[in-house]
Amino acid sequence: MAYNLLKGKRGIITGALNENSIAWKIAEKAHEEGATFVLTNAPVAMRMGEINSLAEKTGSQVIPADATSVEDLTNLFTQSQEILGGKVDFVLHSIGMSVNMRKNIPYTESNYDYFLKGIDISALSFHKMLSVARKLDAINEGGSVVALTYMAAQRTYPFYTDMADIKAMLESIARSFGYHYGLEKKVRINTVSQSPTKTTAGTGIKGFGDFFDYAQAISPLGNADAESCADYCITLFSDLTRMVTMQNLFHDGGYSSTGVSNEVMTKLGVE
Amino acid sequence: MAYNLLKGKRGIITGALNENSIAWKIAEKAHEEGATFVLTNAPVAMRMGEINSLAEKTGSQVIPADATSVEDLTNLFTQSQEILGGKVDFVLHSIGMSVNMRKNIPYTESNYDYFLKGIDISALSFHKMLSVARKLDAINEGGSVVALTYMAAQRTYPFYTDMADIKAMLESIARSFGYHYGLEKKVRINTVSQSPTKTTAGTGIKGFGDFFDYAQAISPLGNADAESCADYCITLFSDLTRMVTMQNLFHDGGYSSTGVSNEVMTKLGVE
Amino acid sequence: MAYNLLKGKRGIITGALNENSIAWKIAEKAHEEGATFVLTNAPVAMRMGEINSLAEKTGSQVIPADATSVEDLTNLFTQSQEILGGKVDFVLHSIGMSVNMRKNIPYTESNYDYFLKGIDISALSFHKMLSVARKLDAINEGGSVVALTYMAAQRTYPFYTDMADIKAMLESIARSFGYHYGLEKKVRINTVSQSPTKTTAGTGIKGFGDFFDYAQAISPLGNADAESCADYCITLFSDLTRMVTMQNLFHDGGYSSTGVSNEVMTKLGVE
Amino acid sequence: MAYNLLKGKRGIITGALNENSIAWKIAEKAHEEGATFVLTNAPVAMRMGEINSLAEKTGSQVIPADATSVEDLTNLFTQSQEILGGKVDFVLHSIGMSVNMRKNIPYTESNYDYFLKGIDISALSFHKMLSVARKLDAINEGGSVVALTYMAAQRTYPFYTDMADIKAMLESIARSFGYHYGLEKKVRINTVSQSPTKTTAGTGIKGFGDFFDYAQAISPLGNADAESCADYCITLFSDLTRMVTMQNLFHDGGYSSTGVSNEVMTKLGVE
Repeated sequence: MAYNLLKGKRGIITGALNENSIAWKIAEKAHEEGATFVLTNAPVAMRMGEINSLAEKTGSQVIPADATSVEDLTNLFTQSQEILGGKVDFVLHSIGMSVNMRKNIPYTESNYDYFLKGIDISALSFHKMLSVARKLDAINEGGSVVALTYMAAQRTYPFYTDMADIKAMLESIARSFGYHYGLEKKVRINTVSQSPTKTTAGTGIKGFGDFFDYAQAISPLGNADAESCADYCITLFSDLTRMVTMQNLFHDGGYSSTGVSNEVMTKLGVE
Repeated sequence: MAYNLLKGKRGIITGALNENSIAWKIAEKAHEEGATFVLTNAPVAMRMGEINSLAEKTGSQVIPADATSVEDLTNLFTQSQEILGGKVDFVLHSIGMSVNMRKNIPYTESNYDYFLKGIDISALSFHKMLSVARKLDAINEGGSVVALTYMAAQRTYPFYTDMADIKAMLESIARSFGYHYGLEKKVRINTVSQSPTKTTAGTGIKGFGDFFDYAQAISPLGNADAESCADYCITLFSDLTRMVTMQNLFHDGGYSSTGVSNEVMTKLGVE
Repeated sequence: MAYNLLKGKRGIITGALNENSIAWKIAEKAHEEGATFVLTNAPVAMRMGEINSLAEKTGSQVIPADATSVEDLTNLFTQSQEILGGKVDFVLHSIGMSVNMRKNIPYTESNYDYFLKGIDISALSFHKMLSVARKLDAINEGGSVVALTYMAAQRTYPFYTDMADIKAMLESIARSFGYHYGLEKKVRINTVSQSPTKTTAGTGIKGFGDFFDYAQAISPLGNADAESCADYCITLFSDLTRMVTMQNLFHDGGYSSTGVSNEVMTKLGVE
Repeated sequence: MAYNLLKGKRGIITGALNENSIAWKIAEKAHEEGATFVLTNAPVAMRMGEINSLAEKTGSQVIPADATSVEDLTNLFTQSQEILGGKVDFVLHSIGMSVNMRKNIPYTESNYDYFLKGIDISALSFHKMLSVARKLDAINEGGSVVALTYMAAQRTYPFYTDMADIKAMLESIARSFGYHYGLEKKVRINTVSQSPTKTTAGTGIKGFGDFFDYAQAISPLGNADAESCADYCITLFSDLTRMVTMQNLFHDGGYSSTGVSNEVMTKLGVE
């Protein structure tokens, strides 16, 4: 069911790797809701090709961009405005990678070159996107920017290693930049703290499967899936949330506010 | 601009005192978005009569109910289902009153009968509504309940007196009941923590005007007004936020995440 | 090992029911650290008599007081100053009781007379103590007041029923009153959010034992026990923390900042 | 007045630049409380020489160390244990520097090399210290590590530029590492979020003076000064807080829990 919530709006969507990606679902929903947008991914991820089917389906063009490169991002925002015929109204940041996690390096023994690389890719890329957009004046007044994050920024999940600290920085960047961009152009910037989700990125994390089940058993509504997350992001891109900014918004079926569930207690006690 | 976000949905809206009320704006928007609903207010407030014009405008019926009375609330939910032709999908709790505040009693000298009365009217009424709804199974699966609150629940605002403590309880009730109702029926319960708003209730608070200006000067987007709050609540009543529950959501133009603004610094430094 | 941290300080300690009570341990530690104090409990609890052995051991007098009675509290603060020879420097609020919990009434079906009684005993009693103390000017400049609370005020624990909402109010009262008392007399007011503890009150909660083990398995340092809580409260009563106020302080072995532990994941995965 | 709270304890204290430094006050207090410790600073800062007078006064040795260098930190922990005659019991991290801030570069135009340098110096240095200490098993069971931080990690202060995001990461590292080090060795790791303080670092921030006055006017107890912060840190290094870990602790005279004060309202309204 579509509502035309984003009718006439233009956007940039990062991170649509394949059809399990949250960004993929967001692109589909944004298209249904009347938006036009550009898809982008790191050149490396682009090779996988699947994104072209999404582009076709949604009438979008794909612009490869390394999100750590100010030059690439400048090109992305410049070209996007040309392709879309004007300034953009929404941006999705769904970019995250930890080399330490990928290489199964224990958190306490993190490699610092990898740590810095993770920061650059997963957090500073957000600042760079915003900085480039602002410099080019590429986002319309009242535009909306959303970055995806995870609650490890508030509480420790051992398997999430240095991404926890990086997400904490990402969420802070949303607040810090949100202040300035809000004042100047009423652009709002929020992060959505999403349930563990069975994306390629998610399932690549060691121990993810077990944790998914645990979070499922804690959350009164169960884990939020990629599709419901996409729906939620659509509301944040719409004009209906125009006064929401600098917030970290939990989209997690109630997980974040549940200390323990009867289900988990039963599992631990009985089995 | 309407999107049919609440098409076919049935609701109950409390607290629409007059056209400055947030609840009033929510009723107007819900109507525009395709919902049918029942309006309700305390019998005392009803006498003011304005609500009838809102009822007419939105094709609604008005059912007086004292929100501290389980009997009245039972009647409200029972009749509403009859009038609306089925279970309800959304409920707005916009009920708050502190006798201590109204009588300008300093917080440190609060009268405890008044304090308890304030709790009963402003916080327990929320529990009672939810309890009655659940007992009658009056809310559809996936239904959404929103209560309006204020950030004094997290930080002290001297003029807000005992309502700060009462709102803290209200927000906790949202979490506590949200767990149970979420598990059982996927009903979600959230609070919206709104900017100071020029409603009759708001402007009745001593020192409100000055504070409104201060919050305006802190918030990067300025204070959120009643209309934008209504828009936001519509998204929370819609299916697009079906996995958001047990959250306290700031709708405040960024106020809650801003420590200080340049504007306030300038005002304090220069004047 | 004692440090004379409270040498010359006078206090009032509520809630020392028996030697498992946190308040009991606090009294013992405060005595070791050089404080003199008055013990108090509700007349009902007093009958149990054990408190007299504590009084003897610590050279204290016992003043029965119903903490919901402003008259009793006035008497408590008046007599305490006479007995102790001056204004008091610290106060411990360790008072909590939920009739709904005691009667195993499910949260969603809470009885509202019981709910209000729980509020009066467990939360408003704190406001009353502070209000009486302030009126009598019974606390020295820089004095320190601590109330014990539990994290259910932030996240839902199904077994904690209405005490969750009541503790949320208690913590808010600490902030609200802390503002005023801090401004006027530099009296600081904090809450300590303690691990589940094997007190008479704690173990009386249905499902407490299982939950104790769960929290133990989550907390990197394990659950904090009554004795370590007493040590922590001593630091808060001391002059070394004179600028800490209006805070809710977690004393829980890291539980509050841990999303999940490997131990819990293993237990859930393997068994 | 001293209590022997740290009698027999060994520590490492970073960041004592001059007598206005919080770390300087902590060193003085730790000495008074019976601790022995090593002082350390970046070789650059060392040249200023003042640290030698502190070393003399407290009977300490000074080991220069670049906190971004794992090699230097390894040397620091190795030598410290030799000098002090055993493993250390406490560590203070008081290291922070933002090149962007120093160069008055607006946040939205941050230079990313500077940003990464700020991260390395101010946040990753904390991870490196902990990682080295753990690898060398240089901290005793139950040891305590404290890093100083600022509330800009939670709310935006325009003048704090990228240090806000860096402090958010620092606080997250405390939680993340605190989990592992707590589990393995009961070492606890906390951050202290301190009032704006008239240190060399603080007063070097543009607009700091005005903000200091604003925070002073908000905080019920006024801003906490360096000396009271030192006292607070002593309690955190002591055994009395042995179950407190992974917390961000506000030491700010109530600022963090105060929305607005009557004083600020008056200033804004009247003047």
